[in-house]
Amino acid sequence: MKRIALVLLVALSASANDIREYRKQNEARILAELTEFLAIPNVASDEANIRRNAQHLLAMLERHGVAARLLESPSGGPPAVFGELRTPGATKTIAFYAHYDGQPVDPSEWKTDPWKPVVIDGRIYARSASDDKGPIVAMMAALDALRASKRSPSVNLKFFFEGEEEAGSEHLGALLGKHKETLAADGWIFCDGPRHQSGAMQVVFGVRGTVGVTLTATGPSRALHSGHYGNWAPNPIAILINALASMRDAEGNVKIAGFHDDVRAVTAAERAAANALPDNEEELRRSFAIAKPECGGQAILPVPEKGDRQDCLSSTLPSRLLAPSVNFTGIRGGTIGVNAIPAEASASIDFRLVPDQKPERIRAIVEEHLRKHGFTNVKLAWADGYAAARTPLDLPFSRSVLRIVEKTTGAKPLVVPTFGGSLPLYLFEQTLHTPFVIVPVVNSDNNQHAANENLRLQNLWEAIEIYAGLFSEL
Amino acid sequence: MKRIALVLLVALSASANDIREYRKQNEARILAELTEFLAIPNVASDEANIRRNAQHLLAMLERHGVAARLLESPSGGPPAVFGELRTPGATKTIAFYAHYDGQPVDPSEWKTDPWKPVVIDGRIYARSASDDKGPIVAMMAALDALRASKRSPSVNLKFFFEGEEEAGSEHLGALLGKHKETLAADGWIFCDGPRHQSGAMQVVFGVRGTVGVTLTATGPSRALHSGHYGNWAPNPIAILINALASMRDAEGNVKIAGFHDDVRAVTAAERAAANALPDNEEELRRSFAIAKPECGGQAILPVPEKGDRQDCLSSTLPSRLLAPSVNFTGIRGGTIGVNAIPAEASASIDFRLVPDQKPERIRAIVEEHLRKHGFTNVKLAWADGYAAARTPLDLPFSRSVLRIVEKTTGAKPLVVPTFGGSLPLYLFEQTLHTPFVIVPVVNSDNNQHAANENLRLQNLWEAIEIYAGLFSEL
Repeated sequence: MKRIALVLLVALSASANDIREYRKQNEARILAELTEFLAIPNVASDEANIRRNAQHLLAMLERHGVAARLLESPSGGPPAVFGELRTPGATKTIAFYAHYDGQPVDPSEWKTDPWKPVVIDGRIYARSASDDKGPIVAMMAALDALRASKRSPSVNLKFFFEGEEEAGSEHLGALLGKHKETLAADGWIFCDGPRHQSGAMQVVFGVRGTVGVTLTATGPSRALHSGHYGNWAPNPIAILINALASMRDAEGNVKIAGFHDDVRAVTAAERAAANALPDNEEELRRSFAIAKPECGGQAILPVPEKGDRQDCLSSTLPSRLLAPSVNFTGIRGGTIGVNAIPAEASASIDFRLVPDQKPERIRAIVEEHLRKHGFTNVKLAWADGYAAARTPLDLPFSRSVLRIVEKTTGAKPLVVPTFGGSLPLYLFEQTLHTPFVIVPVVNSDNNQHAANENLRLQNLWEAIEIYAGLFSEL
Repeated sequence: MKRIALVLLVALSASANDIREYRKQNEARILAELTEFLAIPNVASDEANIRRNAQHLLAMLERHGVAARLLESPSGGPPAVFGELRTPGATKTIAFYAHYDGQPVDPSEWKTDPWKPVVIDGRIYARSASDDKGPIVAMMAALDALRASKRSPSVNLKFFFEGEEEAGSEHLGALLGKHKETLAADGWIFCDGPRHQSGAMQVVFGVRGTVGVTLTATGPSRALHSGHYGNWAPNPIAILINALASMRDAEGNVKIAGFHDDVRAVTAAERAAANALPDNEEELRRSFAIAKPECGGQAILPVPEKGDRQDCLSSTLPSRLLAPSVNFTGIRGGTIGVNAIPAEASASIDFRLVPDQKPERIRAIVEEHLRKHGFTNVKLAWADGYAAARTPLDLPFSRSVLRIVEKTTGAKPLVVPTFGGSLPLYLFEQTLHTPFVIVPVVNSDNNQHAANENLRLQNLWEAIEIYAGLFSEL
């Protein structure tokens, strides 16, 4: 162990020392650049300010030697900011994604003004400090640091900064389709999301898909006395809950025929990676006050395998996220304790999908399930969904990213086969036919999407070294 | 048919003509007495006014020749007003029940002042006009009319007017227990509730019992992102709906082992009476926009009998009310369309019981059912309930009441084996060991419990003839 650490330290000093030195001498300038960027309000619906952000970012890219222009979507919405830096002789192109828009703010919940960045106790506080303006500024600093140390990128670099990620990326699909050639690359690196709660780096190779539906069962046209009519009038709560219960049991096992049909098999490497992630089950359970389930409880296994259902040890959170799931998220009908049969009852389901499940096929499968079980009078309102995406762990691109992150940080990153949450990365995978990985650099306690968003400056400094490594060693 | 009607008409004219004549000559006086009574606000929680009502009623009874006094409950609450009129030589005692308190009012919803009675288009509008001050005044007028025509009651009469029926009769059990001897009778007649929607008289021989429970399933201590934790954290909506679905299916069939164990067999007479009630299924379905279920749908049969489940013709509303039922009345958890696993979810069940189901045994059976099905983490909060009550149709008392109502009105009344709703009549049955029947006299469109409560004057006049018949011919 000691020996390996020493070897890494030597490798680190050879390639990263000059980057670190550059950063140390330029911290004030880098922070000033971030501060100026953060001061421009960036809620996606605030069109004027979003355009100001885009122009600011365009100038920033040019200032750091990157040829830049705006990419508009044919369907409208905020522009994406695109930059390109060609490397003479390079045969590969790697694209870096981040978004420059931020979540809406409720200033009354903030301790400081969300658009007046301020450094307190080694963190800078402002909307988008971590999500994602900090990472964008770190990329620019990494380019400067490489140049200052007389090093060149090893590949052609492309930068793609989206302007409506926090608003649902409504126009992204059309934008990617239109600018397919411009955005062609051999790999995409997503600079979004937080590092692991332990502070360790994590490299993430997938996200789940998602599709949502609201079910509504109807009873009598108005609420009826449950004594006078309860045996006779159809009860919408009873219809609804029986429809829901036909789809998954209390432990989470999915009972919809065909739901798992398209599930891509989890590879041995993915399973091993999931099992190798830090075991914080006990800590999570304590923090959420959740009892440890009895063996077999709460187990939906990635790929139905005989015997697995009884294997509590393999049903940790990371391994479960490799599987699709049926989540009941809301239910509402009648009034608790009021003796009436209500006129209707509704519930929402959030289906989380894995590769290669398709939202439109899940929709058809669910509708067929309800028809087959006689719930023809339950109305369904589907929300638009999108597919999952997952990059194989053993691609050369995947291995290179892991190697470089390890080298620049001096520690093996956690290998996360998939996030449980959803991002529309399938758009990149399916439109651009390019593998992707997610390399989060910011602190996990950054209050992303909430009040008092912040970025730990030490994370900003380390990000510069990681990006410099990715730019120059891929 | 014609012959029978003629015979009835003759009988009617012999005994009821003088009652009707008396009424016709005294309408203004009777109406004045009702108006004065209705002008005293009578919400059970309005202690001062409830006492004013009781004193007013005491004086009214005395004025009409009935020895009267207040009966207090040892546990507190409004007093009951008790009156007694002995008949020399009579061997039987019949008690008449009504309540003098009324539902709370929201004056903004009333077209006229609820405490300023006014006659419009042949109806008197005021709170309690129908429920039950009108019937009380009709009883007093019936006593006067008998006296004016030189006739005596055929039995000893007792009057029991409750002061907190609309507030849940909380102190009634203790009051009946304390005044058991005072209230001893050979039969009770309840002068509460409306006539059938068709306008026909109905005599009702039972009410269902009721017991309610609220179930709460808990998940994580705070709402968790359904993407990141949905496969892993227990989902309280899933636990709750699976617990509920284990108890009854979408069609209303009860799946709780032992639930029907204590159900008293429905007699052939009760079943025949239920089947003989007017068939207004189509009209009700149209009015509530309910589709006719397929054969077998929504069928919970009174007594499990082979083959009955497929017999749509026998599953009319009245026949279904002879059975107990499990009604889901409210459900709530999470937020529709928000992708989170909520911290908890709750639902309420209204169990309607038939003789001889006991609320405390239903409670034990439900708890055992949930335990057996593994829902040990669902918390239950039971409300106090009470048992059903039903008087056999073939008791001499039952037959006499039916005969007298037919004779005084000139038409066979509808024989209703039980109401679907619940009243604590078991308290009378169990404490006083006396059979009861309900003889509603007021119009069914009286807006009972709602704004613009009213009593059709023609119903008031007919009530006087019916009560005179019951007083003098039982």
